[in-house]
Amino acid sequence: MGEIVRHGVTRRWSDAVIHGGVAYFVEVPDDMTQVPAGQFQQIFSQVEMRLRLVGSNPSRLLQVLIYLPHPEDLPLFNEMWDAWVPAGMAPSRACIHAALANPACRIELILTAAVLA
Amino acid sequence: MGEIVRHGVTRRWSDAVIHGGVAYFVEVPDDMTQVPAGQFQQIFSQVEMRLRLVGSNPSRLLQVLIYLPHPEDLPLFNEMWDAWVPAGMAPSRACIHAALANPACRIELILTAAVLA
Amino acid sequence: MGEIVRHGVTRRWSDAVIHGGVAYFVEVPDDMTQVPAGQFQQIFSQVEMRLRLVGSNPSRLLQVLIYLPHPEDLPLFNEMWDAWVPAGMAPSRACIHAALANPACRIELILTAAVLA
Repeated sequence: MGEIVRHGVTRRWSDAVIHGGVAYFVEVPDDMTQVPAGQFQQIFSQVEMRLRLVGSNPSRLLQVLIYLPHPEDLPLFNEMWDAWVPAGMAPSRACIHAALANPACRIELILTAAVLA
Repeated sequence: MGEIVRHGVTRRWSDAVIHGGVAYFVEVPDDMTQVPAGQFQQIFSQVEMRLRLVGSNPSRLLQVLIYLPHPEDLPLFNEMWDAWVPAGMAPSRACIHAALANPACRIELILTAAVLA
Repeated sequence: MGEIVRHGVTRRWSDAVIHGGVAYFVEVPDDMTQVPAGQFQQIFSQVEMRLRLVGSNPSRLLQVLIYLPHPEDLPLFNEMWDAWVPAGMAPSRACIHAALANPACRIELILTAAVLA
Protein backbone atom coordinates (compact mmCIF):
# COMPACT_ATOMS: atom_id res chain seq x y z
CA MET A 1 0.00 0.00 0.00
CA GLY A 2 3.01 2.30 0.47
CA GLU A 3 3.79 3.37 -3.10
CA ILE A 4 2.53 6.72 -4.41
CA VAL A 5 2.59 7.49 -8.16
CA ARG A 6 1.99 11.03 -9.42
CA HIS A 7 1.15 12.24 -12.93
CA GLY A 8 1.56 15.78 -14.23
CA VAL A 9 3.23 17.21 -11.14
CA THR A 10 3.39 21.01 -10.92
CA ARG A 11 4.39 23.32 -8.08
CA ARG A 12 0.74 23.53 -6.98
CA TRP A 13 -0.85 20.16 -7.70
CA SER A 14 -0.50 16.81 -9.44
CA ASP A 15 -2.88 16.03 -12.29
CA ALA A 16 -3.41 12.60 -10.68
CA VAL A 17 -2.15 10.74 -7.63
CA ILE A 18 -2.38 6.94 -7.42
CA HIS A 19 -2.13 4.92 -4.22
CA GLY A 20 -3.47 1.55 -3.07
CA GLY A 21 -5.14 0.82 -6.39
CA VAL A 22 -7.06 4.13 -6.36
CA ALA A 23 -6.48 7.23 -8.52
CA TYR A 24 -7.42 10.67 -7.20
CA PHE A 25 -7.78 13.49 -9.71
CA VAL A 26 -9.49 16.79 -10.45
CA GLU A 27 -10.53 18.20 -13.81
CA VAL A 28 -11.57 21.63 -15.05
CA PRO A 29 -12.04 22.33 -18.78
CA ASP A 30 -8.79 23.23 -20.55
CA ASP A 31 -10.58 25.91 -22.60
CA MET A 32 -12.94 27.95 -20.42
CA THR A 33 -13.89 30.35 -23.22
CA GLN A 34 -16.26 27.72 -24.62
CA VAL A 35 -20.03 27.64 -23.99
CA PRO A 36 -21.21 25.18 -21.29
CA ALA A 37 -21.84 22.32 -23.76
CA GLY A 38 -18.31 22.72 -25.08
CA GLN A 39 -16.82 22.76 -21.59
CA PHE A 40 -18.78 19.64 -20.60
CA GLN A 41 -17.76 17.73 -23.73
CA GLN A 42 -14.19 18.80 -23.13
CA ILE A 43 -14.13 17.70 -19.49
CA PHE A 44 -15.48 14.24 -20.38
CA SER A 45 -12.67 13.87 -22.95
CA GLN A 46 -10.12 15.01 -20.38
CA VAL A 47 -11.44 12.50 -17.83
CA GLU A 48 -11.23 9.69 -20.40
CA MET A 49 -7.65 10.64 -21.26
CA ARG A 50 -6.65 10.90 -17.61
CA LEU A 51 -8.23 7.52 -16.83
CA ARG A 52 -6.29 5.92 -19.69
CA LEU A 53 -3.05 7.48 -18.44
CA VAL A 54 -3.53 6.13 -14.91
CA GLY A 55 -4.51 2.66 -16.16
CA SER A 56 -8.26 2.90 -15.65
CA ASN A 57 -11.37 3.71 -17.71
CA PRO A 58 -14.84 5.31 -17.30
CA SER A 59 -16.35 2.02 -16.08
CA ARG A 60 -14.03 2.09 -13.05
CA LEU A 61 -15.01 5.45 -11.58
CA LEU A 62 -15.85 5.11 -7.88
CA GLN A 63 -16.97 8.59 -6.85
CA VAL A 64 -17.49 11.86 -8.72
CA LEU A 65 -18.15 15.19 -6.99
CA ILE A 66 -19.58 17.71 -9.43
CA TYR A 67 -19.21 21.43 -8.75
CA LEU A 68 -21.49 23.35 -11.08
CA PRO A 69 -21.46 27.11 -10.39
CA HIS A 70 -24.52 27.82 -12.59
CA PRO A 71 -27.59 25.82 -11.47
CA GLU A 72 -29.24 26.44 -14.84
CA ASP A 73 -26.52 24.27 -16.46
CA LEU A 74 -27.63 21.13 -14.60
CA PRO A 75 -30.22 19.77 -17.10
CA LEU A 76 -27.73 20.00 -19.98
CA PHE A 77 -24.92 18.58 -17.88
CA ASN A 78 -27.09 15.65 -16.79
CA GLU A 79 -28.13 14.92 -20.38
CA MET A 80 -24.51 14.81 -21.51
CA TRP A 81 -23.43 12.86 -18.40
CA ASP A 82 -26.14 10.23 -18.95
CA ALA A 83 -24.93 9.73 -22.53
CA TRP A 84 -21.31 9.53 -21.38
CA VAL A 85 -21.37 7.19 -18.36
CA PRO A 86 -21.05 3.49 -19.37
CA ALA A 87 -24.45 1.82 -18.83
CA GLY A 88 -24.57 -0.21 -15.61
CA MET A 89 -21.25 1.23 -14.41
CA ALA A 90 -22.23 4.62 -12.96
CA PRO A 91 -20.16 5.90 -10.01
CA SER A 92 -21.43 7.34 -6.74
CA ARG A 93 -22.17 10.97 -7.59
CA ALA A 94 -22.97 14.27 -5.87
CA CYS A 95 -23.67 17.65 -7.48
CA ILE A 96 -23.25 20.93 -5.62
CA HIS A 97 -23.59 24.53 -6.77
CA ALA A 98 -20.64 26.62 -5.60
CA ALA A 99 -18.37 29.32 -7.01
CA LEU A 100 -15.11 28.11 -8.56
CA ALA A 101 -11.67 29.73 -8.58
CA ASN A 102 -12.06 30.85 -12.23
CA PRO A 103 -15.42 32.60 -12.87
CA ALA A 104 -15.34 31.50 -16.54
CA CYS A 105 -15.25 27.84 -15.50
CA ARG A 106 -18.66 26.12 -15.78
CA ILE A 107 -17.69 22.79 -14.19
CA GLU A 108 -15.17 21.19 -11.86
CA LEU A 109 -15.00 17.44 -11.21
CA ILE A 110 -13.29 15.70 -8.28
CA LEU A 111 -12.86 12.05 -9.17
CA THR A 112 -11.81 8.78 -7.58
CA ALA A 113 -11.24 5.73 -9.78
CA ALA A 114 -10.02 2.18 -9.36
CA VAL A 115 -6.94 1.42 -11.44
CA LEU A 116 -6.55 -1.94 -13.14
CA ALA A 117 -4.53 -4.46 -11.15
CA MET B 1 -8.08 -4.59 -5.14
CA GLY B 2 -9.52 -4.91 -8.62
CA GLU B 3 -13.13 -5.85 -7.92
CA ILE B 4 -15.85 -3.17 -8.02
CA VAL B 5 -19.32 -3.86 -6.61
CA ARG B 6 -22.21 -1.46 -7.30
CA HIS B 7 -25.58 -1.18 -5.55
CA GLY B 8 -28.67 0.52 -6.95
CA VAL B 9 -27.25 1.32 -10.38
CA THR B 10 -29.21 3.85 -12.45
CA ARG B 11 -28.35 5.61 -15.70
CA ARG B 12 -26.94 8.54 -13.73
CA TRP B 13 -25.36 7.13 -10.57
CA SER B 14 -24.99 4.10 -8.34
CA ASP B 15 -26.42 4.28 -4.83
CA ALA B 16 -23.14 2.84 -3.56
CA VAL B 17 -19.85 1.68 -5.06
CA ILE B 18 -17.53 -0.66 -3.13
CA HIS B 19 -13.85 -1.18 -3.89
CA GLY B 20 -10.81 -2.18 -1.85
CA GLY B 21 -12.81 -2.58 1.35
CA VAL B 22 -14.28 0.93 1.09
CA ALA B 23 -17.85 1.94 0.21
CA TYR B 24 -18.51 5.31 -1.45
CA PHE B 25 -22.06 6.65 -1.34
CA VAL B 26 -24.18 9.80 -1.37
CA GLU B 27 -27.51 10.41 0.35
CA VAL B 28 -30.24 13.02 0.03
CA PRO B 29 -33.57 12.65 1.87
CA ASP B 30 -36.09 10.53 -0.02
CA ASP B 31 -38.92 12.90 0.94
CA MET B 32 -37.86 16.53 0.57
CA THR B 33 -41.30 17.91 1.44
CA GLN B 34 -40.54 17.30 5.13
CA VAL B 35 -39.31 19.96 7.58
CA PRO B 36 -35.54 19.95 8.30
CA ALA B 37 -35.85 17.69 11.38
CA GLY B 38 -37.78 15.17 9.29
CA GLN B 39 -35.24 15.29 6.47
CA PHE B 40 -32.34 14.81 8.91
CA GLN B 41 -34.01 11.87 10.67
CA GLN B 42 -34.76 10.37 7.27
CA ILE B 43 -31.21 10.72 5.99
CA PHE B 44 -29.77 9.03 9.09
CA SER B 45 -32.14 6.09 8.51
CA GLN B 46 -31.16 5.95 4.85
CA VAL B 47 -27.45 5.94 5.78
CA GLU B 48 -28.03 3.10 8.27
CA MET B 49 -29.88 1.06 5.67
CA ARG B 50 -27.24 1.72 3.02
CA LEU B 51 -24.45 0.75 5.42
CA ARG B 52 -26.24 -2.52 6.21
CA LEU B 53 -26.67 -3.27 2.51
CA VAL B 54 -22.95 -2.76 1.78
CA GLY B 55 -21.88 -4.81 4.80
CA SER B 56 -20.95 -1.99 7.13
CA ASN B 57 -22.50 0.01 9.99
CA PRO B 58 -22.43 3.54 11.50
CA SER B 59 -19.35 2.72 13.59
CA ARG B 60 -17.34 2.16 10.41
CA LEU B 61 -17.84 5.54 8.72
CA LEU B 62 -14.49 7.01 7.68
CA GLN B 63 -15.38 10.42 6.27
CA VAL B 64 -18.62 12.40 5.96
CA LEU B 65 -18.94 15.62 3.96
CA ILE B 66 -22.06 17.50 4.95
CA TYR B 67 -23.64 19.98 2.54
CA LEU B 68 -26.17 22.09 4.37
CA PRO B 69 -27.70 24.81 2.17
CA HIS B 70 -29.33 26.66 5.10
CA PRO B 71 -26.77 27.72 7.75
CA GLU B 72 -29.56 28.19 10.28
CA ASP B 73 -30.16 24.41 10.18
CA LEU B 74 -26.72 23.62 11.61
CA PRO B 75 -27.52 23.66 15.37
CA LEU B 76 -30.44 21.26 14.87
CA PHE B 77 -28.45 19.06 12.52
CA ASN B 78 -25.55 18.88 14.98
CA GLU B 79 -27.87 17.99 17.85
CA MET B 80 -29.39 15.11 15.85
CA TRP B 81 -25.97 14.06 14.50
CA ASP B 82 -24.48 13.93 18.02
CA ALA B 83 -27.33 11.67 19.15
CA TRP B 84 -26.94 9.45 16.09
CA VAL B 85 -23.17 8.86 15.79
CA PRO B 86 -21.99 5.86 17.86
CA ALA B 87 -20.01 7.17 20.86
CA GLY B 88 -16.25 6.90 20.35
CA MET B 89 -16.67 6.01 16.67
CA ALA B 90 -17.19 9.40 14.99
CA PRO B 91 -15.87 9.79 11.43
CA SER B 92 -13.79 12.62 10.02
CA ARG B 93 -16.36 15.31 9.20
CA ALA B 94 -16.66 18.59 7.31
CA CYS B 95 -19.71 20.83 6.95
CA ILE B 96 -20.09 23.34 4.13
CA HIS B 97 -22.96 25.63 3.18
CA ALA B 98 -23.70 25.42 -0.54
CA ALA B 99 -26.74 25.27 -2.79
CA LEU B 100 -27.92 21.79 -3.78
CA ALA B 101 -29.45 20.56 -7.04
CA ASN B 102 -32.96 20.45 -5.52
CA PRO B 103 -33.85 23.67 -3.64
CA ALA B 104 -36.23 21.74 -1.35
CA CYS B 105 -33.37 19.53 -0.14
CA ARG B 106 -32.05 20.59 3.29
CA ILE B 107 -29.09 18.18 3.44
CA GLU B 108 -26.75 16.13 1.27
CA LEU B 109 -24.17 13.71 2.66
CA ILE B 110 -21.14 12.30 0.84
CA LEU B 111 -19.92 9.28 2.75
CA THR B 112 -17.00 6.86 2.83
CA ALA B 113 -17.20 3.75 5.00
CA ALA B 114 -15.10 0.67 5.66
CA VAL B 115 -16.94 -2.55 4.85
CA LEU B 116 -16.53 -5.59 7.06
CA ALA B 117 -13.84 -8.00 5.92
CA MET C 1 -8.20 -3.87 5.47
CA GLY C 2 -10.60 -4.20 8.37
CA GLU C 3 -8.91 -2.19 11.11
CA ILE C 4 -10.01 1.42 11.79
CA VAL C 5 -7.84 3.72 13.93
CA ARG C 6 -9.21 7.05 15.17
CA HIS C 7 -7.35 10.06 16.59
CA GLY C 8 -8.87 12.85 18.68
CA VAL C 9 -12.35 11.35 18.95
CA THR C 10 -15.10 13.73 20.13
CA ARG C 11 -18.86 13.34 20.26
CA ARG C 12 -19.14 14.96 16.83
CA TRP C 13 -16.07 13.94 14.84
CA SER C 14 -12.65 12.35 14.95
CA ASP C 15 -9.64 14.53 14.16
CA ALA C 16 -8.40 11.73 11.88
CA VAL C 17 -9.56 8.27 10.83
CA ILE C 18 -7.12 5.75 9.37
CA HIS C 19 -8.09 2.68 7.36
CA GLY C 20 -6.42 0.60 4.67
CA GLY C 21 -3.25 2.67 4.71
CA VAL C 22 -5.15 5.93 4.17
CA ALA C 23 -5.79 8.75 6.67
CA TYR C 24 -8.88 10.95 6.33
CA PHE C 25 -8.91 14.26 8.15
CA VAL C 26 -10.29 17.81 8.14
CA GLU C 27 -8.63 20.98 9.39
CA VAL C 28 -9.84 24.47 10.23
CA PRO C 29 -7.54 27.03 11.90
CA ASP C 30 -7.46 26.70 15.68
CA ASP C 31 -7.48 30.51 16.08
CA MET C 32 -10.00 32.12 13.71
CA THR C 33 -9.42 35.64 15.07
CA GLN C 34 -6.23 35.87 13.02
CA VAL C 35 -5.93 37.59 9.62
CA PRO C 36 -6.01 35.25 6.56
CA ALA C 37 -2.21 34.90 6.38
CA GLY C 38 -2.17 33.85 10.03
CA GLN C 39 -4.98 31.34 9.52
CA PHE C 40 -3.24 29.84 6.48
CA GLN C 41 0.11 29.53 8.26
CA GLN C 42 -1.68 27.97 11.20
CA ILE C 43 -3.56 25.41 9.10
CA PHE C 44 -0.36 24.28 7.37
CA SER C 45 1.24 23.72 10.80
CA GLN C 46 -1.83 21.83 11.97
CA VAL C 47 -1.75 19.61 8.86
CA GLU C 48 1.95 18.88 9.44
CA MET C 49 1.30 17.95 13.06
CA ARG C 50 -1.69 15.79 12.14
CA LEU C 51 0.31 13.99 9.43
CA ARG C 52 3.09 13.25 11.91
CA LEU C 53 0.58 11.89 14.44
CA VAL C 54 -0.97 9.51 11.88
CA GLY C 55 2.43 8.35 10.63
CA SER C 56 2.57 10.33 7.42
CA ASN C 57 4.06 13.61 6.12
CA PRO C 58 3.31 16.41 3.60
CA SER C 59 4.91 14.43 0.76
CA ARG C 60 2.28 11.71 1.17
CA LEU C 61 -0.88 13.80 0.69
CA LEU C 62 -3.14 12.21 -1.91
CA GLN C 63 -6.02 14.67 -2.25
CA VAL C 64 -6.78 18.07 -0.74
CA LEU C 65 -10.14 19.83 -1.11
CA ILE C 66 -9.81 23.52 -0.27
CA TYR C 67 -12.87 25.48 0.84
CA LEU C 68 -12.08 29.18 0.72
CA PRO C 69 -15.11 31.35 1.58
CA HIS C 70 -13.47 34.60 0.39
CA PRO C 71 -12.37 34.41 -3.28
CA GLU C 72 -10.06 37.40 -2.75
CA ASP C 73 -7.93 35.22 -0.41
CA LEU C 74 -6.95 32.82 -3.20
CA PRO C 75 -3.77 34.56 -4.50
CA LEU C 76 -2.32 34.75 -0.98
CA PHE C 77 -3.36 31.20 -0.17
CA ASN C 78 -1.79 29.90 -3.40
CA GLU C 79 1.47 31.75 -2.69
CA MET C 80 1.69 30.22 0.79
CA TRP C 81 0.58 26.79 -0.49
CA ASP C 82 3.25 26.79 -3.24
CA ALA C 83 5.91 27.54 -0.64
CA TRP C 84 4.59 24.84 1.68
CA VAL C 85 4.00 21.81 -0.60
CA PRO C 86 7.13 19.63 -0.98
CA ALA C 87 8.48 20.13 -4.53
CA GLY C 88 7.56 17.26 -6.85
CA MET C 89 5.12 15.79 -4.30
CA ALA C 90 1.97 17.91 -4.76
CA PRO C 91 -1.37 16.17 -4.14
CA SER C 92 -4.46 16.25 -6.32
CA ARG C 93 -6.15 19.52 -5.39
CA ALA C 94 -9.46 21.34 -5.85
CA CYS C 95 -10.44 24.79 -4.58
CA ILE C 96 -14.06 25.85 -4.14
CA HIS C 97 -15.59 29.03 -2.73
CA ALA C 98 -18.37 28.22 -0.26
CA ALA C 99 -19.57 29.47 3.11
CA LEU C 100 -18.22 27.62 6.15
CA ALA C 101 -19.92 26.81 9.46
CA ASN C 102 -17.99 29.56 11.30
CA PRO C 103 -18.10 32.92 9.43
CA ALA C 104 -14.74 33.93 10.94
CA CYS C 105 -13.05 30.91 9.37
CA ARG C 106 -11.08 31.77 6.20
CA ILE C 107 -10.14 28.22 5.20
CA GLU C 108 -11.21 24.59 5.59
CA LEU C 109 -9.20 21.66 4.23
CA ILE C 110 -10.43 18.11 3.64
CA LEU C 111 -7.41 15.85 3.30
CA THR C 112 -6.55 12.30 2.35
CA ALA C 113 -3.02 11.01 2.96
CA ALA C 114 -1.14 7.73 2.64
CA VAL C 115 0.31 6.55 5.92
CA LEU C 116 3.74 4.94 6.05
CA ALA C 117 3.68 1.15 5.88
